Amino acid sequence: MKATYMFGPGDVRIIDAPDPALKDSTDALVRIVRACVCGSDLHPYHGMNETPEGVSMGHEFIGVVEALGSDVRTLAVGDLVIAPFAFSDGTCEFCTEGLYTSCVHGGFWDMPGMGGGQAEAIRVPFADGTLVKVPGVDENSPLLTSLLTLSDVYGTGWHAAHRAGVTAGDTVAVIGDGAVGLLAVLSAKQLGAERIILMGRHKARTDLGIEFGATDVVAERGEEGIAKVRELTGGFGARKVLEAVGHMPAYEQAYKIVRPGGVISRVGVPQYENAPVGFASLFGGNITLTGGPAPVRGYIERLMPAILSGSVNPGRVFDRTVGLDGVPEAYRAMDDREALKVMITF
Amino acid sequence: MKATYMFGPGDVRIIDAPDPALKDSTDALVRIVRACVCGSDLHPYHGMNETPEGVSMGHEFIGVVEALGSDVRTLAVGDLVIAPFAFSDGTCEFCTEGLYTSCVHGGFWDMPGMGGGQAEAIRVPFADGTLVKVPGVDENSPLLTSLLTLSDVYGTGWHAAHRAGVTAGDTVAVIGDGAVGLLAVLSAKQLGAERIILMGRHKARTDLGIEFGATDVVAERGEEGIAKVRELTGGFGARKVLEAVGHMPAYEQAYKIVRPGGVISRVGVPQYENAPVGFASLFGGNITLTGGPAPVRGYIERLMPAILSGSVNPGRVFDRTVGLDGVPEAYRAMDDREALKVMITF
Repeated sequence: MKATYMFGPGDVRIIDAPDPALKDSTDALVRIVRACVCGSDLHPYHGMNETPEGVSMGHEFIGVVEALGSDVRTLAVGDLVIAPFAFSDGTCEFCTEGLYTSCVHGGFWDMPGMGGGQAEAIRVPFADGTLVKVPGVDENSPLLTSLLTLSDVYGTGWHAAHRAGVTAGDTVAVIGDGAVGLLAVLSAKQLGAERIILMGRHKARTDLGIEFGATDVVAERGEEGIAKVRELTGGFGARKVLEAVGHMPAYEQAYKIVRPGGVISRVGVPQYENAPVGFASLFGGNITLTGGPAPVRGYIERLMPAILSGSVNPGRVFDRTVGLDGVPEAYRAMDDREALKVMITF
Repeated sequence: MKATYMFGPGDVRIIDAPDPALKDSTDALVRIVRACVCGSDLHPYHGMNETPEGVSMGHEFIGVVEALGSDVRTLAVGDLVIAPFAFSDGTCEFCTEGLYTSCVHGGFWDMPGMGGGQAEAIRVPFADGTLVKVPGVDENSPLLTSLLTLSDVYGTGWHAAHRAGVTAGDTVAVIGDGAVGLLAVLSAKQLGAERIILMGRHKARTDLGIEFGATDVVAERGEEGIAKVRELTGGFGARKVLEAVGHMPAYEQAYKIVRPGGVISRVGVPQYENAPVGFASLFGGNITLTGGPAPVRGYIERLMPAILSGSVNPGRVFDRTVGLDGVPEAYRAMDDREALKVMITF
């Protein structure tokens, strides 16, 4: 089959890879019908070590079940399924609590021995625990564009808002106008936030943020941006800050615009290990820092009905579509910020 | 009057200071009847810059109201009152929400123009907002020993447990066997924690922790201590970690013993600004970091009834009593860890 591999910074290729096959009795074999490129795919695109074997890429996909191991109970061949960006057994103590990304048997698609989602097919471990069946939708439905966001970016934006405890009447600031930031705006709106300040400077993106529910856009960065948010929030900052970038300047912006007693919820994968947390940044104002890899498996059922009914349209974050051969060009376009998020059709 | 001043590291003196007087119409003048030395007083005792004027010391006291400004409404001369370690106006938007330590007009006793609590008397600003009257108790009551902990250490331990969201059946680890750590144990117990692991290595202190409700004591430090806590918690760590020290090794211990999805609640004033918060420490496991200076003003009424009824006895953290002239020696004894916490009588 054809699959996307990365061999070094900027070096993405479509190669002939071995066809995946069932291995464990809890596996599913899935033919992929939609996939996409993630902002987090750009981290190795910039900084990975060169490797002659390459790394299979992609962790967001919708597919059709082609074959099932003998112990899979909840799925049938032909089912249309959504995969979260992490697989999980669905039965361990963490899965039971909804923290699927800490599953004791789980992992990520880019681990050795797994396959990537930017490919024609994939082996899915713990199929019962990992995959979510989409009822009453076929593989050609236009709804697939929005359903695909449940693999990662919508669930991740939702996690930011949910973990921050966004509630009716809240004042929320969202840092980052990428797909996750925009869907954090949508999530905050769904959770009842009254004021949603989106920090971003790409007008096409922040315009979409306004459609998703942002009430204010702050394009300024650094001290100027901080002053603007404080001005919009009565001088003290936002009660909830959703950080959807992962770089240090976004973290610094977050603690400088959060209100005393407020919450910073991070979902951008941190590209740093150490950061300010002492009296001057978090402690003095009783700021709470939360967030992490979103356990999106647990959010798919919660968020799917509004997509199926058409009341939300998170798929609008996709502004370009390519076939599998166009994936290397999709990475380039996202890296150059020409494209917000690129969908892959098969 | 006689008051305690610090002039440099290790240099604590009792001096003749000007008698305090009413200044603003919202002030109270309080004659102090009980005070104490705090673990946080030891930070300047180690590291302050030498100053010929000295800094007035002490932020925990119980006193009797001697005079009131014309705008004070809720107090009368002769009232026995508890002061929290921070003063606050009681009416701003933060006070209204219970975050008294972020009061827009509030501050700390060691600010310029204020006085310290290790003295014979003190001017208290925003008396209505700051002081809490103790009903039906006179200044010679043995209950004063426990009531004095409401100024800081009991409310601070309570804040750690409350902010962590400790709830019935919880598994909690407390780092630090100082007065705050021990009262964090008591607080966790009051909030219904089922398992309370106290990390500390001073047997007299950890024995008191057991009386307060600790179910397990881990005396080991570093990797050994971490392994021990994991062993006691089914391998994954404690859901709630209360950090009552403030030094980096305690922070590192905290994120290494917290369960994925768990909470680290800090109340030890951080003696660091930067710390690990990235994928390997907090983010990967969706760990929440919370805490800060405890708004103890808001906890005094909540915690006082159990003291008045005798059902808790947090004053047991005091293991030595001195008169005001004995305060320099009290600092030395606490710094040498001969004394857990020293009470000052007048």
